[in-house]
Amino acid sequence: MTPQTLADCQALDQQDPLRAMRNLFQLPEGVIYLDGNSLGVLPKATPSRVAQAVAQEWGTDLIKSWNTAGWFQLPLKVGNKIARLIGAQDDEVVAADSTSINLFKVLSAALSIAKADHPQENIILSERTNFPTALYIAEALCKERGYQLKLVEAEDLHEALQNDVAVLMLTHVNYRTGAMLNMKEVTAAAHTVGALTVWDLAHSAGAVPVDLTGAQADFAVGCGYKYLNGGPGAPAFVWVNPKHTNRFWQPLTGWWGHAAPFEFTPDYKPAAGITRYQCGTQPILSLTALDTGLDVFLEAEPLGGMKVLRQKSLALTRLFMQLVNTQLADHGFGIATPEQDQERGSQVSLTRSEGAYAIVQALIARGVIGDFRAGDGQQHPDILRFGLTPLYIGYADVWHAVRHLKEVMDTQEWQQARFSQKHAVT
Amino acid sequence: MTPQTLADCQALDQQDPLRAMRNLFQLPEGVIYLDGNSLGVLPKATPSRVAQAVAQEWGTDLIKSWNTAGWFQLPLKVGNKIARLIGAQDDEVVAADSTSINLFKVLSAALSIAKADHPQENIILSERTNFPTALYIAEALCKERGYQLKLVEAEDLHEALQNDVAVLMLTHVNYRTGAMLNMKEVTAAAHTVGALTVWDLAHSAGAVPVDLTGAQADFAVGCGYKYLNGGPGAPAFVWVNPKHTNRFWQPLTGWWGHAAPFEFTPDYKPAAGITRYQCGTQPILSLTALDTGLDVFLEAEPLGGMKVLRQKSLALTRLFMQLVNTQLADHGFGIATPEQDQERGSQVSLTRSEGAYAIVQALIARGVIGDFRAGDGQQHPDILRFGLTPLYIGYADVWHAVRHLKEVMDTQEWQQARFSQKHAVT
Repeated sequence: MTPQTLADCQALDQQDPLRAMRNLFQLPEGVIYLDGNSLGVLPKATPSRVAQAVAQEWGTDLIKSWNTAGWFQLPLKVGNKIARLIGAQDDEVVAADSTSINLFKVLSAALSIAKADHPQENIILSERTNFPTALYIAEALCKERGYQLKLVEAEDLHEALQNDVAVLMLTHVNYRTGAMLNMKEVTAAAHTVGALTVWDLAHSAGAVPVDLTGAQADFAVGCGYKYLNGGPGAPAFVWVNPKHTNRFWQPLTGWWGHAAPFEFTPDYKPAAGITRYQCGTQPILSLTALDTGLDVFLEAEPLGGMKVLRQKSLALTRLFMQLVNTQLADHGFGIATPEQDQERGSQVSLTRSEGAYAIVQALIARGVIGDFRAGDGQQHPDILRFGLTPLYIGYADVWHAVRHLKEVMDTQEWQQARFSQKHAVT
Repeated sequence: MTPQTLADCQALDQQDPLRAMRNLFQLPEGVIYLDGNSLGVLPKATPSRVAQAVAQEWGTDLIKSWNTAGWFQLPLKVGNKIARLIGAQDDEVVAADSTSINLFKVLSAALSIAKADHPQENIILSERTNFPTALYIAEALCKERGYQLKLVEAEDLHEALQNDVAVLMLTHVNYRTGAMLNMKEVTAAAHTVGALTVWDLAHSAGAVPVDLTGAQADFAVGCGYKYLNGGPGAPAFVWVNPKHTNRFWQPLTGWWGHAAPFEFTPDYKPAAGITRYQCGTQPILSLTALDTGLDVFLEAEPLGGMKVLRQKSLALTRLFMQLVNTQLADHGFGIATPEQDQERGSQVSLTRSEGAYAIVQALIARGVIGDFRAGDGQQHPDILRFGLTPLYIGYADVWHAVRHLKEVMDTQEWQQARFSQKHAVT
């Protein structure tokens, strides 16, 4: 049943089995924060945990903390918490470095495997609207290794997936539109033509259920500071299908990926398993914040975990789109996010032929934080992007967000000059 | 004049122009911390600064902080503080990623330049006892690019520096012995044979004066968590001689190195200058701690900065070696650190044919924190390593450290079984 009124939405919040999760976050006052897909909200447990890491682990215990505070194990410990959210097994994930760097690692490894198994294949296939950093990393590796990067629209992926494709590199949930690919089907199609799959889970991990093992995916990376609530620039993560892990060195062969880093031998000998996807020393304070952020998901497990989070996320995005359709019908918005549940992630993206940037700014001035993503002026329009994080966003929040959007449009508030002046965006 | 007694040392501490700097640090009680070359001590200003970044910048201001808290600029802002310590100019250094990853970036760029300018050269030359992660990164790049990694002893470097050397990759101050190379002379010798220089400043930045510009060095990287007091796993830094910066992409082409990262164009266009040596989003909490740690060096500038820090560092290491020579003459120690001032960094490394590990453990049990670095059982002995950080270590600390070492030896305390059981070392 579709909620029709604010009271309906408030009633849904009352019945929400995840409602208590909201209290685990430090939601800023006077704000409806629909940008958890860019930077997740601060968990209440994090400030004291980070303060402890600074004062006790660093300040008092100093280098002993590599052992006593478990700093050595932290990339794998955090990786194990992430593994539970993405259908990976224990000790198959490490949290380290940035998403871009992890993409470099897995794409390098994937190309090495492709070269060995299918030397005639010379294409890396991806979506034109994939997150640009993925395309940049692929572009540089193509130059280096003599491959060609082929970019197509999402709807043309299947047609482009031919025998010349060595690696299919995709973001599971598109950062612009929130459109979600069927990982299992796409992976199977890739394997049919002898291509390996590299999945970017930046907008999936913690947002939608992911089953890397079930999909028989080959490689995956993802982001720690969006839905995983790890804090600004929190380390990213990397997963490799165990059948591939030990086949090749990834080229960032730092000492943390060595089989015996403290023997200080001059020759590199990669550790077995996912540890070889580590490189250098990780930023422990930021990694500690990520570790703490992930505990929220452990607390959500008795409430149904990702399954219940997904149900709520779908209800929130559905509600948002329905309210836009019913209340903003005359204001020229399009909806870029798929209507079908199984085809979307945890965000709603609107389009409008003009004013998208200013409208987002006018909303921010009212305390409704979404963000703007520029289009290319041609096929891909400007986007007003609203992330609906089921851990801390409620139905009434959605109601109020759309009400504010309606007021911004009804009053033409967005046309005030102050909202159109661009500065560095986030 | 050599101090002969504890009273002499205490008098030197009284006269020390840097004595007040010690109060800027949270020195753990009951500890003489001689491991600042592994993990620098917590500056007193850091806990509240990090807490503010967590509670205010992340917790309250959320994504706005990319602009309002200067997160976007932080890698360059921190880089500029580091530049003052290493003889670089403004906007020539970024703080980002790990030392290993930055080595990969600069070594890749150096090989690209070498390939273009001297295609017949096929050797990367380094020291056998260079820090292993540097050798591992070089080993992987050699495999990838068809180069050969040649490792020699320090004393054989000049002889090995022939016309076939494309890149000379060295650590300025050796992590094992504390021996310091003459950057200017070595760089000039390298250039004479057409080789580029890559310098690892992990044990130099903040420890000894460095003049990359004056030495006409080509590339440099360094560590944020040792002498720069940035906290566990703090981001590292990278410098490139401006004459090389814009010549090539480094291969880690993430969006933060793009000329216009928020235009989200599918093609990579590297930013001008050192910005192209950035890759992905940095761990802001850890980077904030590093930013704060570097402020200590700004406070030291009116007191004479690196020049006065160096004078004190040399006096401390000289004192340590003299006390070992006079008080521990019968206990079988060798000194691996050069006696000549201009040949050593800010540490003292002792050798002993047996028991080095247990002796370090016995000292740690007494609150004298140094560390152990394993030898190879052949040419390179086990090392007892003591970092003497002039910002917070005093002359009396050195006195007491050697006194404890003498007691550990006189009483044969180190032979207790509990000190010989190895665990993961730091």
